[in-house]
Amino acid sequence: MRTIIGVMGGAVASDAVMSHAARLGELIAEHDWVLLTGGRNAGIMAAASRGAAEAGGLVLGVLPGDTTQGASPHLDIAIPTGMGDARNVINVLASNVVIALPGGAGTISEVALALKSGRRVVTVGFALGDAFSKYYTSGALAGATTPETAIAIVERLMAEERR
Amino acid sequence: MRTIIGVMGGAVASDAVMSHAARLGELIAEHDWVLLTGGRNAGIMAAASRGAAEAGGLVLGVLPGDTTQGASPHLDIAIPTGMGDARNVINVLASNVVIALPGGAGTISEVALALKSGRRVVTVGFALGDAFSKYYTSGALAGATTPETAIAIVERLMAEERR
Amino acid sequence: MRTIIGVMGGAVASDAVMSHAARLGELIAEHDWVLLTGGRNAGIMAAASRGAAEAGGLVLGVLPGDTTQGASPHLDIAIPTGMGDARNVINVLASNVVIALPGGAGTISEVALALKSGRRVVTVGFALGDAFSKYYTSGALAGATTPETAIAIVERLMAEERR
Amino acid sequence: MRTIIGVMGGAVASDAVMSHAARLGELIAEHDWVLLTGGRNAGIMAAASRGAAEAGGLVLGVLPGDTTQGASPHLDIAIPTGMGDARNVINVLASNVVIALPGGAGTISEVALALKSGRRVVTVGFALGDAFSKYYTSGALAGATTPETAIAIVERLMAEERR
Repeated sequence: MRTIIGVMGGAVASDAVMSHAARLGELIAEHDWVLLTGGRNAGIMAAASRGAAEAGGLVLGVLPGDTTQGASPHLDIAIPTGMGDARNVINVLASNVVIALPGGAGTISEVALALKSGRRVVTVGFALGDAFSKYYTSGALAGATTPETAIAIVERLMAEERR
Repeated sequence: MRTIIGVMGGAVASDAVMSHAARLGELIAEHDWVLLTGGRNAGIMAAASRGAAEAGGLVLGVLPGDTTQGASPHLDIAIPTGMGDARNVINVLASNVVIALPGGAGTISEVALALKSGRRVVTVGFALGDAFSKYYTSGALAGATTPETAIAIVERLMAEERR
Repeated sequence: MRTIIGVMGGAVASDAVMSHAARLGELIAEHDWVLLTGGRNAGIMAAASRGAAEAGGLVLGVLPGDTTQGASPHLDIAIPTGMGDARNVINVLASNVVIALPGGAGTISEVALALKSGRRVVTVGFALGDAFSKYYTSGALAGATTPETAIAIVERLMAEERR
Repeated sequence: MRTIIGVMGGAVASDAVMSHAARLGELIAEHDWVLLTGGRNAGIMAAASRGAAEAGGLVLGVLPGDTTQGASPHLDIAIPTGMGDARNVINVLASNVVIALPGGAGTISEVALALKSGRRVVTVGFALGDAFSKYYTSGALAGATTPETAIAIVERLMAEERR
């Protein structure tokens, strides 16, 4: 089974954050991991998918709707769920590690659901604050400021998993 | 259709928080609202359900498992979903307003999913911090320190909805 | 916990079948059971809900959308799920027994999901044919031609459950 | 986006049916389609996955549990959903066409959910009977007796879709 790395974040994002997402996609592809996103042709989902696709990676999108309408054109595999935000649960359960870029309530829900299910989360430039402090302390949640650092953390987590 | 107020919070909680949950259940019943919880016989779910049941209210539990095993004995209506944490989405969509007491990642996911879907959230003694600041600013999220204040906020939100 | 009886069937139905649905709702209310339907203001869901409401019963609707829009006006408790057809799983898991009236693929999916999860199903004037023959043989699935007979079968199943 | 063909069927199956499943997996791989199954290491899911993997195809498994435990060893991409039978909805929504081999209530639910959502279904040696007759008539559901015929039908459906 291939390693799947989820990249979550806002459907609207600044240029700097979009560029982080694209770079994460690229790095994930270069590691021969599968990229998983929420699949829509918007914000972080679109930027990460484009980055991974252009680097020759396999891109998986788990969509909220019941068709592929509105999906990023860079998905190799589109999974319409028809479940709206409940697909966020699938996004995190299907990811070996979740990387979270800045986003709103949807992204926060994905971070929380990942931690609830024991998936490790790495944030990139996304300050989560008080509610999450115990997860930072336990190491379930780690903060990074660049895509490269985030990927180095993911590498370490995947190596620990194999042991 | 009856008004449904969701009470969310940890499956493990301090005595003070358990007592807040029971009081919230009682106040919800006295307002003739339906109490909705995650349905399990643990923590906030159990305390709120008991409080509402003892005050003669109708208690609805939306369970993660596919049977009623482990459900609070104070539920009138048990809804097994078999969907694990995806039932958190239902908890918030079925609630006119969500009240959140201190909890871990599961509770945070419910707050975030509620805000994502446009449900208002009132926290009681639960500091959510940075990630949620824009929702505090917009009024989608309000903080209270006592059950009575939380219920007063819910009253106001329900009155606005009727107008 | 109160007994919940699910009534499933087409969103479009003949007058005779609509009248069966309304009568089932009435009988369920008279037994002091909670009626559960798919909640929409259409076909069997609407007719059964009206029948139960007019007889003073408690009516629960588990809706496919993420709001109460399009819900039957006879619901006491509306549960929007935002999960489309995945709410069919909840319809059957939350029902002690499922009664199925004629319907299309949605109704058939509910019968099948109920049997998959060990819920008993009683059909009223709904011939399911070959695919379901082993469930008729085992008694998991029973056929009736009138609402009164269906309710008599449900009474027997509930009595067995209590023993 | 790659074409995804779902193969559904019992978790327990006869040797003849298992051999049909393996052959379907092989043919799907040879067409450069992605195989989707329910992902478990049992029955049709396991046989189809093995057939596709041995022919060099990409194999996707959508699992009922919240981990990859019990998954077929032939999956390239495992999607744990934690949603039990509600994952059947995803199985069919993510498939361009669904092929159904003999199975019990779970398989029937997938056929019904596929038809409800407008996905075409091809059965192989699986007589569905009365409840589905209108879908046979409309062409939404087609019957085949061999894997080769089923795949020829899928080819035609995919060609129609492209037009």
